[in-house]
Amino acid sequence: MARDRFHYNVKEALEKDGWIITADPLAIPIGITTIEIDLAAEMAIGAEKDGLKIAVEIKSFLSKSPISEFHMAMGQYGDYREALEESEPERILYLAVPIEIYRTFFQARFIKKRIEQEKVKLVVYESENKSIVEWIN
Amino acid sequence: MARDRFHYNVKEALEKDGWIITADPLAIPIGITTIEIDLAAEMAIGAEKDGLKIAVEIKSFLSKSPISEFHMAMGQYGDYREALEESEPERILYLAVPIEIYRTFFQARFIKKRIEQEKVKLVVYESENKSIVEWIN
Repeated sequence: MARDRFHYNVKEALEKDGWIITADPLAIPIGITTIEIDLAAEMAIGAEKDGLKIAVEIKSFLSKSPISEFHMAMGQYGDYREALEESEPERILYLAVPIEIYRTFFQARFIKKRIEQEKVKLVVYESENKSIVEWIN
Repeated sequence: MARDRFHYNVKEALEKDGWIITADPLAIPIGITTIEIDLAAEMAIGAEKDGLKIAVEIKSFLSKSPISEFHMAMGQYGDYREALEESEPERILYLAVPIEIYRTFFQARFIKKRIEQEKVKLVVYESENKSIVEWIN
């Protein structure tokens, strides 16, 4: 399935960038149920004991309705960020989006406004090359 | 389809409550695409020229993963509220949820916290009776 390929390719892109994948998926119990974020990764920083920790929710935007995928991504981002805030406040949440969608749909006025309002952090990836293009904080 | 029945029943419940349905769905152009909210309704208030205006996004929570439906609902609510803020700031957005789900899933700590954090307004409905149970602002 294409969605699975995107997942695998982003995972490999992060590894090529020096990240160590620590969970796939990252499960966070929230009482009534468990939230699952696609990936957790860590990177050592100099001699610091605790490295940088991230969680990454991967979006392919392969469906025929990018705006529906966007609604879902925004909802997941808000809920996941709160779940992380409760369990591991030091872990930073990123939404992974393909470069093709970042250069088109994500440049639309309304989409940019919503990303800014909700302070969503993005990691832009190139799926075929299995590479990370840009981190947008 | 069950989802369509819920839509029709909430529409009828609002009408029984004195609301006049003015759009089904309510389409809001946002530049790159159009956002569609399930229903728009109005109610006259006394002798005022402009009545109360609402938009309602109907959720059935019939799927096997209520948390996934919740993520989607939260994303839609945030995006729809912003689209309304740009086009008709006086129109109030509600998320319609069935009483069975409101009494169970929506009472969970994490869910209540998220609803409060995002200031989501709810309208609780009983589908079989086609009635509105409660407005939660």
